[in-house]
Amino acid sequence: MTYAVGMRLNRGLVFMSDTRTNAGVDNISTFNKMFNWTIEGERFITLLTAGNLATTQATVSLLEERTKAPADRSPSILEAETMFQVAQLVADTLKDVIEQHGCAGQQADSAFHATMILGGQIKGGPSRLFLIYPEGNFIEASEDTPFFQIGETKYGRPILVRAFDPEMSFAETVKLLLVSFDSTIKANLSVGAPLDLSFYDEDSFAAGKRTRFEADDAYFRTISDGWGDALKSALSKLPAYKTE
Amino acid sequence: MTYAVGMRLNRGLVFMSDTRTNAGVDNISTFNKMFNWTIEGERFITLLTAGNLATTQATVSLLEERTKAPADRSPSILEAETMFQVAQLVADTLKDVIEQHGCAGQQADSAFHATMILGGQIKGGPSRLFLIYPEGNFIEASEDTPFFQIGETKYGRPILVRAFDPEMSFAETVKLLLVSFDSTIKANLSVGAPLDLSFYDEDSFAAGKRTRFEADDAYFRTISDGWGDALKSALSKLPAYKTE
Repeated sequence: MTYAVGMRLNRGLVFMSDTRTNAGVDNISTFNKMFNWTIEGERFITLLTAGNLATTQATVSLLEERTKAPADRSPSILEAETMFQVAQLVADTLKDVIEQHGCAGQQADSAFHATMILGGQIKGGPSRLFLIYPEGNFIEASEDTPFFQIGETKYGRPILVRAFDPEMSFAETVKLLLVSFDSTIKANLSVGAPLDLSFYDEDSFAAGKRTRFEADDAYFRTISDGWGDALKSALSKLPAYKTE
Repeated sequence: MTYAVGMRLNRGLVFMSDTRTNAGVDNISTFNKMFNWTIEGERFITLLTAGNLATTQATVSLLEERTKAPADRSPSILEAETMFQVAQLVADTLKDVIEQHGCAGQQADSAFHATMILGGQIKGGPSRLFLIYPEGNFIEASEDTPFFQIGETKYGRPILVRAFDPEMSFAETVKLLLVSFDSTIKANLSVGAPLDLSFYDEDSFAAGKRTRFEADDAYFRTISDGWGDALKSALSKLPAYKTE
Protein backbone atom coordinates (compact mmCIF):
# COMPACT_ATOMS: atom_id res chain seq x y z
CA MET A 1 0.00 0.00 0.00
CA THR A 2 0.92 3.65 0.00
CA TYR A 3 -0.39 6.87 1.37
CA ALA A 4 0.30 10.10 -0.47
CA VAL A 5 -1.33 13.54 -0.52
CA GLY A 6 -1.03 16.50 -2.86
CA MET A 7 -2.50 19.87 -1.86
CA ARG A 8 -3.11 23.13 -3.65
CA LEU A 9 -2.72 26.07 -1.30
CA ASN A 10 -2.97 29.76 -2.10
CA ARG A 11 0.79 30.00 -1.67
CA GLY A 12 1.66 26.95 -3.74
CA LEU A 13 1.72 23.17 -3.69
CA VAL A 14 2.56 20.68 -0.95
CA PHE A 15 3.20 16.97 -1.39
CA MET A 16 3.75 14.18 1.11
CA SER A 17 4.19 10.46 0.54
CA ASP A 18 5.20 7.44 2.57
CA THR A 19 7.93 5.08 1.32
CA ARG A 20 6.76 1.63 2.28
CA THR A 21 6.11 -1.00 -0.35
CA ASN A 22 4.99 -4.51 0.40
CA ALA A 23 4.32 -7.82 -1.24
CA GLY A 24 2.68 -9.34 1.83
CA VAL A 25 3.33 -8.23 5.40
CA ASP A 26 6.47 -10.38 5.48
CA ASN A 27 8.03 -8.65 2.51
CA ILE A 28 8.33 -4.90 2.99
CA SER A 29 10.81 -2.46 1.51
CA THR A 30 11.47 1.25 1.35
CA PHE A 31 11.11 2.98 -2.02
CA ASN A 32 10.84 6.60 -3.00
CA LYS A 33 7.37 7.43 -4.36
CA MET A 34 7.92 11.15 -4.87
CA PHE A 35 9.61 12.45 -8.02
CA ASN A 36 10.54 16.03 -8.83
CA TRP A 37 11.63 17.64 -12.08
CA THR A 38 12.69 21.26 -12.31
CA ILE A 39 13.87 23.67 -14.98
CA GLU A 40 14.88 26.72 -12.99
CA GLY A 41 12.87 29.75 -13.96
CA GLU A 42 10.53 27.77 -16.21
CA ARG A 43 8.83 24.78 -14.64
CA PHE A 44 8.46 22.61 -11.56
CA ILE A 45 6.79 19.18 -11.68
CA THR A 46 6.13 16.65 -8.90
CA LEU A 47 4.71 13.16 -9.25
CA LEU A 48 3.45 10.96 -6.38
CA THR A 49 2.80 7.28 -7.10
CA ALA A 50 0.67 4.55 -5.54
CA GLY A 51 0.01 1.03 -6.70
CA ASN A 52 2.08 -1.67 -8.36
CA LEU A 53 5.74 -0.71 -7.90
CA ALA A 54 6.87 -2.23 -11.20
CA THR A 55 4.23 -0.16 -12.99
CA THR A 56 5.09 3.10 -11.24
CA GLN A 57 8.85 2.61 -11.64
CA ALA A 58 8.46 1.78 -15.31
CA THR A 59 6.27 4.84 -15.82
CA VAL A 60 8.73 7.14 -14.08
CA SER A 61 11.67 5.60 -15.93
CA LEU A 62 9.95 6.17 -19.26
CA LEU A 63 9.21 9.77 -18.31
CA GLU A 64 12.81 10.17 -17.14
CA GLU A 65 14.30 8.56 -20.23
CA ARG A 66 12.32 10.92 -22.38
CA THR A 67 13.99 13.77 -20.54
CA LYS A 68 17.42 12.31 -21.33
CA ALA A 69 17.61 10.45 -24.64
CA PRO A 70 17.63 13.15 -27.31
CA ALA A 71 16.13 10.97 -30.05
CA ASP A 72 13.19 10.06 -27.87
CA ARG A 73 12.80 13.38 -26.14
CA SER A 74 9.63 14.47 -27.81
CA PRO A 75 7.09 14.52 -26.27
CA SER A 76 8.75 15.12 -22.90
CA ILE A 77 7.35 16.38 -19.64
CA LEU A 78 10.16 18.94 -19.71
CA GLU A 79 8.98 20.21 -23.10
CA ALA A 80 5.21 20.09 -22.76
CA GLU A 81 3.80 23.59 -22.90
CA THR A 82 1.16 23.30 -20.21
CA MET A 83 0.55 21.25 -17.07
CA PHE A 84 -2.47 19.78 -18.86
CA GLN A 85 -0.14 18.40 -21.54
CA VAL A 86 2.19 17.04 -18.85
CA ALA A 87 -0.78 15.29 -17.23
CA GLN A 88 -1.78 13.79 -20.58
CA LEU A 89 1.76 12.56 -21.14
CA VAL A 90 2.01 10.97 -17.69
CA ALA A 91 -1.46 9.43 -18.00
CA ASP A 92 -0.74 7.97 -21.45
CA THR A 93 2.57 6.54 -20.26
CA LEU A 94 0.92 5.00 -17.19
CA LYS A 95 -1.85 3.48 -19.29
CA ASP A 96 0.65 2.07 -21.81
CA VAL A 97 2.73 0.45 -19.08
CA ILE A 98 -0.34 -1.17 -17.51
CA GLU A 99 -1.57 -2.42 -20.88
CA GLN A 100 1.84 -3.85 -21.70
CA HIS A 101 2.01 -5.84 -18.46
CA GLY A 102 -1.66 -6.77 -18.55
CA CYS A 103 -1.37 -8.26 -22.03
CA ALA A 104 1.88 -10.15 -21.41
CA GLY A 105 0.12 -13.39 -20.64
CA GLN A 106 -0.30 -12.71 -16.94
CA GLN A 107 -3.82 -11.96 -15.83
CA ALA A 108 -4.23 -10.51 -12.35
CA ASP A 109 -7.21 -8.32 -11.52
CA SER A 110 -5.95 -4.75 -11.20
CA ALA A 111 -2.62 -6.07 -9.90
CA PHE A 112 -0.68 -3.90 -12.33
CA HIS A 113 -2.71 -0.83 -11.57
CA ALA A 114 -1.34 2.43 -10.22
CA THR A 115 -2.70 5.88 -9.43
CA MET A 116 -0.71 9.09 -9.39
CA ILE A 117 -0.90 12.66 -8.18
CA LEU A 118 0.74 15.18 -10.48
CA GLY A 119 1.36 18.78 -9.52
CA GLY A 120 3.41 21.63 -10.82
CA GLN A 121 3.60 24.91 -12.63
CA ILE A 122 4.87 25.93 -16.07
CA LYS A 123 5.61 29.56 -16.87
CA GLY A 124 2.56 31.24 -18.36
CA GLY A 125 0.04 29.37 -16.23
CA PRO A 126 -0.92 28.84 -12.60
CA SER A 127 0.12 25.82 -10.55
CA ARG A 128 -2.16 22.84 -11.15
CA LEU A 129 -2.81 19.56 -9.40
CA PHE A 130 -4.10 16.38 -11.06
CA LEU A 131 -5.20 12.91 -9.99
CA ILE A 132 -4.29 10.37 -12.68
CA TYR A 133 -6.14 7.07 -12.94
CA PRO A 134 -4.76 3.76 -14.26
CA GLU A 135 -7.22 4.00 -17.16
CA GLY A 136 -5.21 6.96 -18.44
CA ASN A 137 -7.71 9.68 -17.63
CA PHE A 138 -7.39 12.31 -14.93
CA ILE A 139 -9.18 14.99 -12.93
CA GLU A 140 -7.96 18.36 -11.69
CA ALA A 141 -8.16 19.83 -8.20
CA SER A 142 -10.48 22.80 -7.78
CA GLU A 143 -11.49 25.19 -5.03
CA ASP A 144 -14.16 22.69 -3.95
CA THR A 145 -11.71 19.79 -3.89
CA PRO A 146 -8.31 21.34 -3.30
CA PHE A 147 -6.39 18.17 -2.36
CA PHE A 148 -6.02 14.60 -3.58
CA GLN A 149 -5.11 11.43 -1.71
CA ILE A 150 -3.96 8.12 -3.18
CA GLY A 151 -3.44 4.66 -1.68
CA GLU A 152 -4.78 4.09 1.83
CA THR A 153 -6.84 7.26 1.91
CA LYS A 154 -9.56 6.64 4.50
CA TYR A 155 -7.90 6.81 7.93
CA GLY A 156 -6.22 10.11 7.21
CA ARG A 157 -9.13 11.77 5.42
CA PRO A 158 -11.36 13.12 8.24
CA ILE A 159 -8.67 15.43 9.64
CA LEU A 160 -7.91 16.79 6.15
CA VAL A 161 -11.59 17.40 5.41
CA ARG A 162 -12.05 19.21 8.71
CA ALA A 163 -8.84 21.19 9.04
CA PHE A 164 -7.66 21.94 5.50
CA ASP A 165 -7.66 25.63 4.66
CA PRO A 166 -6.19 27.01 1.41
CA GLU A 167 -4.85 29.98 3.39
CA MET A 168 -2.59 27.71 5.46
CA SER A 169 1.12 28.35 5.74
CA PHE A 170 3.49 25.57 4.67
CA ALA A 171 4.39 25.00 8.33
CA GLU A 172 0.74 24.50 9.26
CA THR A 173 0.31 22.13 6.33
CA VAL A 174 3.21 19.98 7.52
CA LYS A 175 1.59 19.65 10.93
CA LEU A 176 -1.76 18.71 9.39
CA LEU A 177 -0.18 16.20 7.00
CA LEU A 178 1.87 14.55 9.75
CA VAL A 179 -1.32 14.04 11.80
CA SER A 180 -3.07 12.56 8.76
CA PHE A 181 -0.12 10.27 8.00
CA ASP A 182 0.29 9.27 11.64
CA SER A 183 -3.38 8.17 11.81
CA THR A 184 -2.84 6.06 8.71
CA ILE A 185 0.46 4.55 9.85
CA LYS A 186 -1.12 3.59 13.18
CA ALA A 187 -3.91 1.71 11.38
CA ASN A 188 -2.27 0.15 8.31
CA LEU A 189 1.05 -1.69 8.53
CA SER A 190 1.61 -1.27 4.81
CA VAL A 191 2.01 2.50 5.18
CA GLY A 192 5.23 3.53 6.90
CA ALA A 193 7.94 6.11 7.49
CA PRO A 194 10.18 7.64 6.30
CA LEU A 195 7.83 10.28 4.89
CA ASP A 196 8.87 12.52 2.02
CA LEU A 197 7.70 16.12 1.95
CA SER A 198 8.02 18.71 -0.76
CA PHE A 199 6.90 22.35 -1.05
CA TYR A 200 6.50 24.48 -4.12
CA ASP A 201 6.18 28.26 -3.83
CA GLU A 202 3.69 29.62 -6.39
CA ASP A 203 5.46 31.43 -9.26
CA SER A 204 8.93 30.48 -8.01
CA PHE A 205 9.60 28.06 -10.92
CA ALA A 206 12.30 26.51 -8.76
CA ALA A 207 12.76 23.28 -6.85
CA GLY A 208 10.96 23.66 -3.55
CA LYS A 209 12.27 22.49 -0.23
CA ARG A 210 12.32 18.70 0.04
CA THR A 211 12.55 16.99 3.43
CA ARG A 212 12.40 13.44 4.74
CA PHE A 213 10.86 12.56 8.12
CA GLU A 214 12.34 9.37 9.56
CA ALA A 215 10.19 7.36 11.99
CA ASP A 216 12.23 8.75 14.90
CA ASP A 217 12.27 12.35 13.64
CA ALA A 218 11.90 14.60 16.70
CA TYR A 219 9.13 16.78 15.24
CA PHE A 220 7.18 13.81 13.86
CA ARG A 221 7.38 12.12 17.30
CA THR A 222 6.19 15.30 19.00
CA ILE A 223 3.14 15.48 16.73
CA SER A 224 2.40 11.76 16.99
CA ASP A 225 2.74 11.73 20.79
CA GLY A 226 0.92 15.01 21.29
CA TRP A 227 -2.03 14.32 19.01
CA GLY A 228 -3.71 11.79 21.30
CA ASP A 229 -3.82 14.29 24.17
CA ALA A 230 -4.81 17.11 21.83
CA LEU A 231 -7.77 15.06 20.56
CA LYS A 232 -8.88 14.12 24.07
CA SER A 233 -8.70 17.75 25.08
CA ALA A 234 -10.67 18.77 21.96
CA LEU A 235 -13.35 16.19 22.77
CA SER A 236 -13.57 17.32 26.37
CA LYS A 237 -14.35 20.85 25.23
CA LEU A 238 -17.43 19.80 23.27
CA PRO A 239 -20.64 19.91 25.32
CA ALA A 240 -21.42 16.75 27.29
CA TYR A 241 -24.23 14.41 26.35
CA LYS A 242 -26.96 14.23 29.00
CA THR A 243 -27.70 10.56 29.53
CA GLU A 244 -30.90 11.28 31.45
CA MET B 1 -22.64 -0.14 3.64
CA THR B 2 -23.02 0.24 7.37
CA TYR B 3 -21.05 1.60 10.25
CA ALA B 4 -21.50 0.09 13.70
CA VAL B 5 -19.38 0.01 16.85
CA GLY B 6 -19.56 -2.08 20.02
CA MET B 7 -17.45 -1.11 23.05
CA ARG B 8 -16.63 -2.77 26.33
CA LEU B 9 -16.22 -0.20 29.09
CA ASN B 10 -15.53 -0.82 32.74
CA ARG B 11 -19.11 0.20 33.51
CA GLY B 12 -20.74 -1.90 30.80
CA LEU B 13 -21.35 -2.06 27.06
CA VAL B 14 -22.14 0.62 24.49
CA PHE B 15 -23.41 0.07 20.96
CA MET B 16 -24.03 2.44 18.09
CA SER B 17 -25.11 1.71 14.52
CA ASP B 18 -26.28 3.67 11.52
CA THR B 19 -29.48 2.73 9.69
CA ARG B 20 -28.73 3.26 6.01
CA THR B 21 -28.85 0.41 3.54
CA ASN B 22 -28.18 0.76 -0.13
CA ALA B 23 -28.26 -1.17 -3.36
CA GLY B 24 -26.48 1.49 -5.35
CA VAL B 25 -26.43 5.18 -4.47
CA ASP B 26 -29.81 5.59 -6.15
CA ASN B 27 -31.51 3.02 -3.96
CA ILE B 28 -31.17 3.78 -0.26
CA SER B 29 -33.43 2.86 2.64
CA THR B 30 -33.52 3.04 6.41
CA PHE B 31 -33.37 -0.21 8.35
CA ASN B 32 -32.70 -1.00 11.96
CA LYS B 33 -29.38 -2.82 12.39
CA MET B 34 -29.41 -3.03 16.19
CA PHE B 35 -31.33 -5.79 17.97
CA ASN B 36 -31.80 -6.23 21.72
CA TRP B 37 -33.08 -9.18 23.73
CA THR B 38 -33.59 -9.00 27.48
CA ILE B 39 -34.77 -11.31 30.24
CA GLU B 40 -35.00 -9.00 33.23
CA GLY B 41 -32.70 -10.10 36.02
CA GLU B 42 -31.03 -12.77 33.91
CA ARG B 43 -29.62 -11.66 30.58
CA PHE B 44 -29.15 -8.83 28.13
CA ILE B 45 -28.05 -9.41 24.52
CA THR B 46 -27.41 -6.93 21.69
CA LEU B 47 -26.59 -7.70 18.08
CA LEU B 48 -25.29 -5.21 15.47
CA THR B 49 -25.32 -6.24 11.83
CA ALA B 50 -23.42 -5.20 8.70
CA GLY B 51 -23.47 -6.67 5.23
CA ASN B 52 -26.16 -8.14 3.00
CA LEU B 53 -29.52 -7.08 4.43
CA ALA B 54 -31.33 -10.24 3.36
CA THR B 55 -28.70 -12.29 5.17
CA THR B 56 -28.77 -10.23 8.38
CA GLN B 57 -32.58 -10.07 8.46
CA ALA B 58 -32.86 -13.84 7.89
CA THR B 59 -30.32 -14.47 10.64
CA VAL B 60 -32.11 -12.23 13.11
CA SER B 61 -35.50 -13.71 12.16
CA LEU B 62 -34.20 -17.22 12.75
CA LEU B 63 -32.79 -16.17 16.12
CA GLU B 64 -36.09 -14.43 16.93
CA GLU B 65 -38.24 -17.35 15.81
CA ARG B 66 -36.28 -19.64 18.04
CA THR B 67 -37.15 -17.39 20.93
CA LYS B 68 -40.83 -17.71 20.04
CA ALA B 69 -41.80 -21.08 18.53
CA PRO B 70 -41.75 -23.54 21.43
CA ALA B 71 -41.05 -26.62 19.32
CA ASP B 72 -38.01 -24.97 17.81
CA ARG B 73 -36.86 -23.13 20.90
CA SER B 74 -33.80 -25.19 21.68
CA PRO B 75 -31.11 -24.04 21.20
CA SER B 76 -32.18 -20.44 21.75
CA ILE B 77 -30.16 -17.34 22.51
CA LEU B 78 -32.52 -16.82 25.45
CA GLU B 79 -31.65 -20.28 26.81
CA ALA B 80 -27.94 -20.55 26.11
CA GLU B 81 -26.06 -20.67 29.38
CA THR B 82 -23.12 -18.45 28.50
CA MET B 83 -22.40 -15.57 26.12
CA PHE B 84 -19.92 -17.88 24.38
CA GLN B 85 -22.80 -20.25 23.58
CA VAL B 86 -24.90 -17.32 22.34
CA ALA B 87 -22.02 -16.31 20.06
CA GLN B 88 -21.77 -19.85 18.70
CA LEU B 89 -25.50 -19.92 18.04
CA VAL B 90 -25.49 -16.58 16.23
CA ALA B 91 -22.38 -17.51 14.25
CA ASP B 92 -23.81 -20.90 13.21
CA THR B 93 -27.08 -19.30 12.16
CA LEU B 94 -25.26 -16.63 10.15
CA LYS B 95 -23.07 -19.22 8.43
CA ASP B 96 -26.09 -21.41 7.61
CA VAL B 97 -27.99 -18.49 6.08
CA ILE B 98 -25.02 -17.52 3.92
CA GLU B 99 -24.48 -21.11 2.79
CA GLN B 100 -28.15 -21.50 1.94
CA HIS B 101 -28.16 -18.40 -0.27
CA GLY B 102 -24.73 -19.12 -1.67
CA CYS B 103 -25.73 -22.62 -2.84
CA ALA B 104 -29.09 -21.63 -4.28
CA GLY B 105 -27.77 -21.34 -7.80
CA GLN B 106 -26.71 -17.71 -7.51
CA GLN B 107 -22.99 -17.10 -7.35
CA ALA B 108 -21.89 -13.64 -6.29
CA ASP B 109 -18.53 -13.12 -4.61
CA SER B 110 -19.18 -12.36 -0.95
CA ALA B 111 -22.45 -10.67 -1.89
CA PHE B 112 -24.35 -12.64 0.72
CA HIS B 113 -21.79 -12.00 3.42
CA ALA B 114 -22.45 -10.26 6.70
CA THR B 115 -20.49 -9.46 9.85
CA MET B 116 -21.93 -8.93 13.30
CA ILE B 117 -21.04 -7.54 16.70
CA LEU B 118 -22.59 -9.41 19.61
CA GLY B 119 -22.50 -8.16 23.19
CA GLY B 120 -24.28 -8.93 26.40
CA GLN B 121 -24.20 -10.49 29.81
CA ILE B 122 -25.77 -13.62 31.27
CA LYS B 123 -26.06 -14.08 35.04
CA GLY B 124 -23.02 -15.93 36.37
CA GLY B 125 -20.55 -14.33 33.98
CA PRO B 126 -19.17 -10.92 33.03
CA SER B 127 -20.37 -8.92 30.03
CA ARG B 128 -18.68 -10.05 26.82
CA LEU B 129 -18.28 -8.62 23.34
CA PHE B 130 -17.74 -10.65 20.15
CA LEU B 131 -17.05 -9.98 16.48
CA ILE B 132 -18.71 -12.64 14.33
CA TYR B 133 -17.44 -13.39 10.83
CA PRO B 134 -19.49 -14.68 7.87
CA GLU B 135 -17.46 -17.89 8.01
CA GLY B 136 -19.15 -18.67 11.32
CA ASN B 137 -16.17 -18.10 13.58
CA PHE B 138 -15.69 -15.22 15.98
CA ILE B 139 -13.24 -13.37 18.21
CA GLU B 140 -13.75 -11.73 21.59
CA ALA B 141 -12.83 -8.24 22.73
CA SER B 142 -10.06 -7.99 25.30
CA GLU B 143 -8.31 -5.28 27.27
CA ASP B 144 -5.94 -4.78 24.34
CA THR B 145 -8.78 -4.54 21.83
CA PRO B 146 -11.79 -3.31 23.80
CA PHE B 147 -14.01 -2.30 20.86
CA PHE B 148 -15.06 -3.67 17.50
CA GLN B 149 -16.17 -1.89 14.35
CA ILE B 150 -18.02 -3.36 11.36
CA GLY B 151 -18.86 -2.01 7.91
CA GLU B 152 -17.13 1.20 6.85
CA THR B 153 -14.60 1.16 9.67
CA LYS B 154 -11.69 3.26 8.46
CA TYR B 155 -12.79 6.91 8.57
CA GLY B 156 -14.03 6.66 12.15
CA ARG B 157 -11.19 4.56 13.51
CA PRO B 158 -8.39 7.08 14.27
CA ILE B 159 -10.47 9.01 16.81
CA LEU B 160 -11.50 5.77 18.56
CA VAL B 161 -7.92 4.50 18.69
CA ARG B 162 -6.73 7.80 20.13
CA ALA B 163 -9.50 8.74 22.53
CA PHE B 164 -11.06 5.49 23.73
CA ASP B 165 -10.60 4.89 27.44
CA PRO B 166 -12.29 1.98 29.29
CA GLU B 167 -12.87 4.34 32.24
CA MET B 168 -15.12 6.58 30.15
CA SER B 169 -18.62 7.47 31.28
CA PHE B 170 -21.51 6.62 28.98
CA ALA B 171 -21.95 10.32 28.23
CA GLU B 172 -18.33 10.66 27.13
CA THR B 173 -18.69 7.56 24.99
CA VAL B 174 -21.69 9.04 23.18
CA LYS B 175 -19.68 12.14 22.34
CA LEU B 176 -16.76 10.02 21.06
CA LEU B 177 -19.04 7.77 19.01
CA LEU B 178 -20.90 10.70 17.45
CA VAL B 179 -17.57 12.19 16.32
CA SER B 180 -16.51 8.83 14.86
CA PHE B 181 -19.87 8.40 13.09
CA ASP B 182 -19.90 11.98 11.86
CA SER B 183 -16.45 11.51 10.25
CA THR B 184 -17.75 8.41 8.50
CA ILE B 185 -21.05 9.95 7.37
CA LYS B 186 -19.15 12.94 5.93
CA ALA B 187 -16.97 10.59 3.84
CA ASN B 188 -19.27 7.73 2.79
CA LEU B 189 -22.75 8.35 1.41
CA SER B 190 -23.77 4.79 2.22
CA VAL B 191 -23.54 5.45 5.97
CA GLY B 192 -26.29 7.70 7.29
CA ALA B 193 -28.46 8.86 10.18
CA PRO B 194 -30.58 8.15 12.12
CA LEU B 195 -28.08 6.55 14.49
CA ASP B 196 -29.16 4.02 17.08
CA LEU B 197 -27.47 3.99 20.48
CA SER B 198 -27.78 1.53 23.31
CA PHE B 199 -26.15 1.30 26.76
CA TYR B 200 -25.89 -1.67 29.07
CA ASP B 201 -24.94 -1.20 32.74
CA GLU B 202 -22.67 -4.02 33.93
CA ASP B 203 -24.52 -6.47 36.21
CA SER B 204 -27.89 -4.75 35.65
CA PHE B 205 -29.35 -7.67 33.62
CA ALA B 206 -31.91 -5.22 32.29
CA ALA B 207 -32.60 -3.48 29.01
CA GLY B 208 -30.30 -0.48 28.86
CA LYS B 209 -31.27 2.93 27.59
CA ARG B 210 -31.88 2.98 23.85
CA THR B 211 -31.88 6.24 21.90
CA ARG B 212 -32.07 7.32 18.28
CA PHE B 213 -30.23 10.35 16.90
CA GLU B 214 -31.94 11.80 13.84
CA ALA B 215 -29.82 13.74 11.35
CA ASP B 216 -31.19 17.00 12.78
CA ASP B 217 -30.84 15.99 16.45
CA ALA B 218 -29.71 19.09 18.34
CA TYR B 219 -26.87 17.36 20.23
CA PHE B 220 -25.62 15.52 17.12
CA ARG B 221 -25.59 18.82 15.21
CA THR B 222 -23.68 20.53 18.04
CA ILE B 223 -21.01 17.82 17.96
CA SER B 224 -20.83 17.75 14.17
CA ASP B 225 -20.61 21.53 13.87
CA GLY B 226 -18.25 21.93 16.83
CA TRP B 227 -15.80 19.21 15.89
CA GLY B 228 -14.21 21.05 12.96
CA ASP B 229 -13.31 24.01 15.17
CA ALA B 230 -12.25 21.72 18.02
CA LEU B 231 -9.86 19.90 15.67
CA LYS B 232 -8.41 23.12 14.31
CA SER B 233 -7.88 24.38 17.83
CA ALA B 234 -6.24 21.07 18.82
CA LEU B 235 -3.92 21.30 15.81
CA SER B 236 -3.01 24.89 16.59
CA LYS B 237 -1.85 23.86 20.06
CA LEU B 238 0.71 21.39 18.73
CA PRO B 239 4.17 22.92 18.22
CA ALA B 240 4.71 24.55 14.83
CA TYR B 241 6.98 23.07 12.18
CA LYS B 242 9.98 25.25 11.41
CA THR B 243 10.26 25.45 7.65
CA GLU B 244 13.69 27.08 7.77
